[in-house]
Amino acid sequence: MALIVHKYGGTSMGSPERIRNVAKRVAKWARAGHQMVVVPSAMSGETNRLLGLAKELAPSRATEAYYRELDMLAATGEQASSALLAIALQAENMESVSYAGWQVPIRTDSSYTKARIESIDDQRVRADLAAGKVVIVTGFQGMDDEGNITTLGRGGSDTSAVAVAAAMKADECLIYTDVDGVYTTDPRVVPEARRLLTVSFEEMLEMASLGSKVLQIRSVEFAGKYKVPMRVLSSFTPWDIDIHEEAKSGTLITFEEDEKMEQAVVSGIAFNRDEAKISVLGVPDKPGIAFQILGAVADANIEVDVIIQNVSKDGKTDFSFTVNRGDYARTMELLKEKVVPELGAQEVVGDAKIAKVSIVGIGMRSHVGVASKMFRTLSEEGINIQMISTSEIKTSVVIDEKYVELAVRCLHKAFALDQAVA
Amino acid sequence: MALIVHKYGGTSMGSPERIRNVAKRVAKWARAGHQMVVVPSAMSGETNRLLGLAKELAPSRATEAYYRELDMLAATGEQASSALLAIALQAENMESVSYAGWQVPIRTDSSYTKARIESIDDQRVRADLAAGKVVIVTGFQGMDDEGNITTLGRGGSDTSAVAVAAAMKADECLIYTDVDGVYTTDPRVVPEARRLLTVSFEEMLEMASLGSKVLQIRSVEFAGKYKVPMRVLSSFTPWDIDIHEEAKSGTLITFEEDEKMEQAVVSGIAFNRDEAKISVLGVPDKPGIAFQILGAVADANIEVDVIIQNVSKDGKTDFSFTVNRGDYARTMELLKEKVVPELGAQEVVGDAKIAKVSIVGIGMRSHVGVASKMFRTLSEEGINIQMISTSEIKTSVVIDEKYVELAVRCLHKAFALDQAVA
Repeated sequence: MALIVHKYGGTSMGSPERIRNVAKRVAKWARAGHQMVVVPSAMSGETNRLLGLAKELAPSRATEAYYRELDMLAATGEQASSALLAIALQAENMESVSYAGWQVPIRTDSSYTKARIESIDDQRVRADLAAGKVVIVTGFQGMDDEGNITTLGRGGSDTSAVAVAAAMKADECLIYTDVDGVYTTDPRVVPEARRLLTVSFEEMLEMASLGSKVLQIRSVEFAGKYKVPMRVLSSFTPWDIDIHEEAKSGTLITFEEDEKMEQAVVSGIAFNRDEAKISVLGVPDKPGIAFQILGAVADANIEVDVIIQNVSKDGKTDFSFTVNRGDYARTMELLKEKVVPELGAQEVVGDAKIAKVSIVGIGMRSHVGVASKMFRTLSEEGINIQMISTSEIKTSVVIDEKYVELAVRCLHKAFALDQAVA
Repeated sequence: MALIVHKYGGTSMGSPERIRNVAKRVAKWARAGHQMVVVPSAMSGETNRLLGLAKELAPSRATEAYYRELDMLAATGEQASSALLAIALQAENMESVSYAGWQVPIRTDSSYTKARIESIDDQRVRADLAAGKVVIVTGFQGMDDEGNITTLGRGGSDTSAVAVAAAMKADECLIYTDVDGVYTTDPRVVPEARRLLTVSFEEMLEMASLGSKVLQIRSVEFAGKYKVPMRVLSSFTPWDIDIHEEAKSGTLITFEEDEKMEQAVVSGIAFNRDEAKISVLGVPDKPGIAFQILGAVADANIEVDVIIQNVSKDGKTDFSFTVNRGDYARTMELLKEKVVPELGAQEVVGDAKIAKVSIVGIGMRSHVGVASKMFRTLSEEGINIQMISTSEIKTSVVIDEKYVELAVRCLHKAFALDQAVA
């Protein structure tokens, strides 16, 4: 008998019929002798509906008091879907009870709309499990020290599930979603993309931060910190699929590096088109310019991703970085009107039509020449590299947006990702 | 400066535009120097939407665990509308905060879907009022001793508002609704019906229980118990109506009888078509027959309203009562198959096409001949009275449904309700 946490996304909870299927699947697991905790997202569309209502009424200036109310509002979506799932389980003759975040309680800090979990009390849940109940814990939300409702940000239900699994010392946390696992790259771009049987949590972390939308990055961080065995699998298989088969399906996120040593050097290719590139040219090269440029950007609450500073020439340097494409115009304006004149830089140029392509693999630590193979492959296809950024287990390049599919396809082939691992 | 509680019904909260109007109205009251607590219902249609989803998933047998989840689910409607109202107030530059029932906390017993309020902690709300905030308290819900969410039953937000007003010793509780007050009778039946400037809480109690749907009966009981001054008024007047005019509009529910002494003997006429009449004829007249008949009906969870037992003749008696029309067929079946054979009664006859018409007035206590004037008026119109039931301040008659409008109209005239009170 194991203690298992299931997490179901909004699409899986999207209608009474789908909720019934979730209940049947969970009941199957419970009847197989497992203690079950389930973390559901809000029904798909519900969070957007609620935030849309808020937007129609929102004050001109977003204060903390406003964000507090947004969390009060948004948290209702998961509370409703959790109660509905408990009801559906009761209809399957399973004893079941649902708890809102504050009832567990799941304690968080007070950063409304992006709160971080601080602790989870497992007593109430454990007592119910011991009494044979399936326990539903609302995803996405918690309570701060003053008893205010908080939410964890978009996709926060993944984090809730992993955090509950960590607190309960669950044997495995199964993330049911609308894809059947983690792929070497997006199958819509590369039809030969393969599902990975396992992926290390560090690779998953890079992939999540590089644009793979399978898992929320904070849930992966959490899983890594607490060593929660975590599996991504499909909620669209028939609910009555053999449980042993189901337990091995999808992609397992692992923590033991040894298992991975014999595998491919590169595990996957991530890409995103959400960024824009900005370069400040002819900046007088003196201490503090990075801070002067990026400090102003950060003060405007704009997040920066890749950052490159070229070597100095004639006492001048070029400074480039990428921002979210939605922040592009605002950042350009800020730099032109304020930063460039203050710095005495020559000019600022930008390009919103870029894409970032990354190869990710824990094997890159112990293999040399992986990055250069990437650069050679792209050069053979005539794709110009505009920026490069590396970490221990990934290499990212910024290229012209129009080459993104070509780049991903040729890299996928060059690193033999279309071939099954021995 | 007064402490005022406003309650807004679902229609008043039905869209962002209407919520904005509520916020403007509340802001006007706050700016006039009042401390404001607001209790909103869920947006109209929301509770039905949620319970509709639950119905699609419901187990075949409704257990306490099921009702617990129904409350988890239904409570989200008021939590969402409360947060939206707080946001709308912030957009009007009013500091505002919303609290779910459990955050106040409003403590109730554990009777899910029909819980009763046991206590309200006013500390948190009072501190916010002192800090100049408008406080929104979710209607309809509370928390039991084990930290489960409970709801108060349909229309429970009225009760929440009155209970909060009682706990806070508010100066007045204003119930904003889609009608502009309490009328002598339904204006759709009698165009001459007049809005009452005041009505005693006992009269209001009778009217609520007799079919007037302006206020939930438990809110009136609560107001009576704690002597909460309560006013029913329209939320569809322009929000910027003069506040002094608004404060005197609608109908005030009073507790001082003296004020009423000079007023009409009869204050209003209530009626409903929701009942059906059942008579068990030729029942052997011995102790315990009422219990034998009504006990079986109560065991089937069927509510009984008017009960009449005729005098005995030849050791036999006739026993009549009314039930909700929706329970008519089931009650007839129960009596025919089980109760009548066991009792040795002659037969059971029923009539679903009846209506109950009641005159209500606190003045009936001190005036004789009011009931007989009612009977004479009906007889002059050729309307046959099938059953009669009286209390200290009301007389109800059961008549053929087809005469209900005629009866209400002629009684309204006979008791001079169309004439303004001196």
